[in-house]
Amino acid sequence: MQASKPKEITAKKSENFDEWYTQVILRSELMDYSPVSGCMVFRPLSYAIWEIIQRATDELFKKEGIQNVYFPLLIPERLLRKEQEHVEGFAPEVAWVTEAGNTKLEERLAIRPTSETIMYESFSKWIRSYRDLPLKLNQWNSVIRWEFKHPTPFLRSREFLWNEGHTVYATKEEAEAERDIILGIYSKITREYLALPGIIGKKTDKEKFAGAIATYSIEHLLPDGKAIQGPDFHLDGQNFSKAFEITFLNKEGKREYAWQNTWAITTREIGVMVATHSDDRGLVLPPKVAPIQVVIIPILDEKSKVEVLNAARDISKRLESVARVKLDDRDYYTAGWKFNDWEIKGVPLRIEIGPRDIKASQVILARRDTLEKFSANMKDLERAVIDTLESIQSNLYLKAERFLKENTRKASNIKELKELLEKKGGIIQVGWCGMRRCEDKIKEETGGKITNLPLQADRFEKCVICNMESKMTANVAKSY
Amino acid sequence: MQASKPKEITAKKSENFDEWYTQVILRSELMDYSPVSGCMVFRPLSYAIWEIIQRATDELFKKEGIQNVYFPLLIPERLLRKEQEHVEGFAPEVAWVTEAGNTKLEERLAIRPTSETIMYESFSKWIRSYRDLPLKLNQWNSVIRWEFKHPTPFLRSREFLWNEGHTVYATKEEAEAERDIILGIYSKITREYLALPGIIGKKTDKEKFAGAIATYSIEHLLPDGKAIQGPDFHLDGQNFSKAFEITFLNKEGKREYAWQNTWAITTREIGVMVATHSDDRGLVLPPKVAPIQVVIIPILDEKSKVEVLNAARDISKRLESVARVKLDDRDYYTAGWKFNDWEIKGVPLRIEIGPRDIKASQVILARRDTLEKFSANMKDLERAVIDTLESIQSNLYLKAERFLKENTRKASNIKELKELLEKKGGIIQVGWCGMRRCEDKIKEETGGKITNLPLQADRFEKCVICNMESKMTANVAKSY
Repeated sequence: MQASKPKEITAKKSENFDEWYTQVILRSELMDYSPVSGCMVFRPLSYAIWEIIQRATDELFKKEGIQNVYFPLLIPERLLRKEQEHVEGFAPEVAWVTEAGNTKLEERLAIRPTSETIMYESFSKWIRSYRDLPLKLNQWNSVIRWEFKHPTPFLRSREFLWNEGHTVYATKEEAEAERDIILGIYSKITREYLALPGIIGKKTDKEKFAGAIATYSIEHLLPDGKAIQGPDFHLDGQNFSKAFEITFLNKEGKREYAWQNTWAITTREIGVMVATHSDDRGLVLPPKVAPIQVVIIPILDEKSKVEVLNAARDISKRLESVARVKLDDRDYYTAGWKFNDWEIKGVPLRIEIGPRDIKASQVILARRDTLEKFSANMKDLERAVIDTLESIQSNLYLKAERFLKENTRKASNIKELKELLEKKGGIIQVGWCGMRRCEDKIKEETGGKITNLPLQADRFEKCVICNMESKMTANVAKSY
Repeated sequence: MQASKPKEITAKKSENFDEWYTQVILRSELMDYSPVSGCMVFRPLSYAIWEIIQRATDELFKKEGIQNVYFPLLIPERLLRKEQEHVEGFAPEVAWVTEAGNTKLEERLAIRPTSETIMYESFSKWIRSYRDLPLKLNQWNSVIRWEFKHPTPFLRSREFLWNEGHTVYATKEEAEAERDIILGIYSKITREYLALPGIIGKKTDKEKFAGAIATYSIEHLLPDGKAIQGPDFHLDGQNFSKAFEITFLNKEGKREYAWQNTWAITTREIGVMVATHSDDRGLVLPPKVAPIQVVIIPILDEKSKVEVLNAARDISKRLESVARVKLDDRDYYTAGWKFNDWEIKGVPLRIEIGPRDIKASQVILARRDTLEKFSANMKDLERAVIDTLESIQSNLYLKAERFLKENTRKASNIKELKELLEKKGGIIQVGWCGMRRCEDKIKEETGGKITNLPLQADRFEKCVICNMESKMTANVAKSY
């Protein structure tokens, strides 16, 4: 039986981004479609990436004293309806359970689109005094939002995996201080692990989370020039604590409403990472989230087969202490087939070893990001591997950061804004008076929207729409 | 403001087991009820225990080359119906999604009661040749089974957390060889982590998994004399591969149906562990699964407060490298209040340190399992802690094993069986001819059922019901 032909990426990232993205995620075996429209299968490669992200994030949560819990998947309709803005935001996307076995349920149950309403019902029972605060809980689970927009795997999926943090504080100040801690964690994970830069900012009231008083987000820019929202943090103020009667006795014995926050990072980040770093050959994974960081491929001929395989095994053993290593010793595939296979799957570093290398006491290293090949002395292999992986990690980040910088522009009037969005895409910074009608006008006139109000940005004098005084700088982009 | 009174367990384990169990799991803050009938909240304590179980199990899975994945929560009805026995077994308990937003769905979607049918649809696409086998996948998730029996938190819950392993092999022999590997992993986790003995055996055809050709289980015995099923392993043979067309080309280029297995361990084990080890003061946790293994409580008086707190902090620091330690330095609770609080919560080892201990260069150790108190020299503290934790772990296991042995009896006729079940409960070993009508008769006459057919057991000459030749030894018990 013949070896099957490795799957190829035929679309070009620069020519047909959507088709290219679809080919990369399918052919690298990152995911597959499922029989449920808009829901995807996380195959071992993407799930292993998620486990790495999850573990790194969870460790940082635990250092902050945040504890994990698990609340039921199903939320009774009457609970979902307790906070007005919240239910209005989510009801159009809720998947409803109405029957169990052969029995019609008396009350519809929502599959959680997010868990505020079921968690806060418990919080109101658990919290009695200031001694019970802060309460810092988190869960890793999946949620369903039955969106009717066109789904895109990872980027917009009817079911996705995420963390949902839910914290309760005695004072507004403590609640607000959490913002920088959580956004700091998310920023560290996206930058240092996923090699993704992002713009931290505040959402406009129009775009904030349903039920929050303010939402902050990390926004990413995709290679097609569209922005996409990453992890977010919501100051809920006392909205939910009033709807759910979450009160506590303060030190003076007086009853007060508590202050709450919620925050999340989702599997969407995997899609952003894939889209950002990958190329026309397939996936490119940053070493820190690559389940396999180094693949070793022995170059075999009949005469020296045993010797080469043994050398490859030795190297594999040696490298286990410095990297996540895989030795590909399958004998029914050629070395060329394997090169292609691991390239599509995005393994950051390939090591080739053949009879000539053994004689020269060296191996060949091939970087997935730059496709460069170079030899490394067998003696210093650990060092060479560590250094190369670090170099790949930082190269990917710097490239993505450069792209973001080059595609962040300024416009001082609507004509400029429109032209830049149409011709160049990317992020356009403008002045904004803060009025909803100017925000709506931006959308109407340009098709772009205010993605967020960056915390760090130059100031403008005038609003890009009404020419009144600019109160804040807004990032405008076409977005997912 | 006064310190609140610590919660007490008022029911006795030996007198009113059900009430005692409920008090223990609620008052230790292990769980809480939720607004969804039959679904529970995993509070930080039980979820942290689950994380420890999950991580230990997952590491053993990964050593066997098993990879984690995530398949959609929802299963289209037509897929669930593909394997006849399977759908008949699960349909009466399925929670159905019929609406999304304001739209009625064209096809009902089942919330997974288990994921065979959605996973195997993908397997049939992914598996082409013998090179794609074995395929060894697993997922950690929650499932919903809308049972109408009386729910008991952890032990029988409409939503529970579990692993579901799904493996595919080219040959029957390879598939069957996996049984001992997986049951070995589950046995190791239940015995060495949860300190739970169990009886490994085969389920009868009546009791096997819907769709399997054979089911193997680990059965536990609860303190009330009832048996309860623990982790299980199902040989699916070619039942699903035929229903889902999971075929592969073998080395000779001939198409064959694949051989499949499925296996699971669930959060029920937490309930079994709690019921087995805990006592009239509250929870007793085996050290290996205790999120906090050692709690340090400073005994403070006004004069030596600073000195004692500093000493307690030093000890806490020192012990971090050998155990999961918590220093309880809350100043609004008395030492006595704290003793009680951590006893209810089951922390295996308490360390007390006061001014007199500092002078004597010692601390007081208090074991949660035996309630013994003894002093340990400050110099050898690490050793004393390690040894005591090990001793607690093995003591709990041995006690549980002794209980299981003492409550495993034999009966040679139906009268004996009935009497033993009624008067003593526990497990009764009997001879069985293997016929369904004798199995049904046991249930009718005694209210007990065949829990499993132990792999290791003495043989009987005659069937306990029909007096024909006994083909196998059966364990009979009243069961959850």
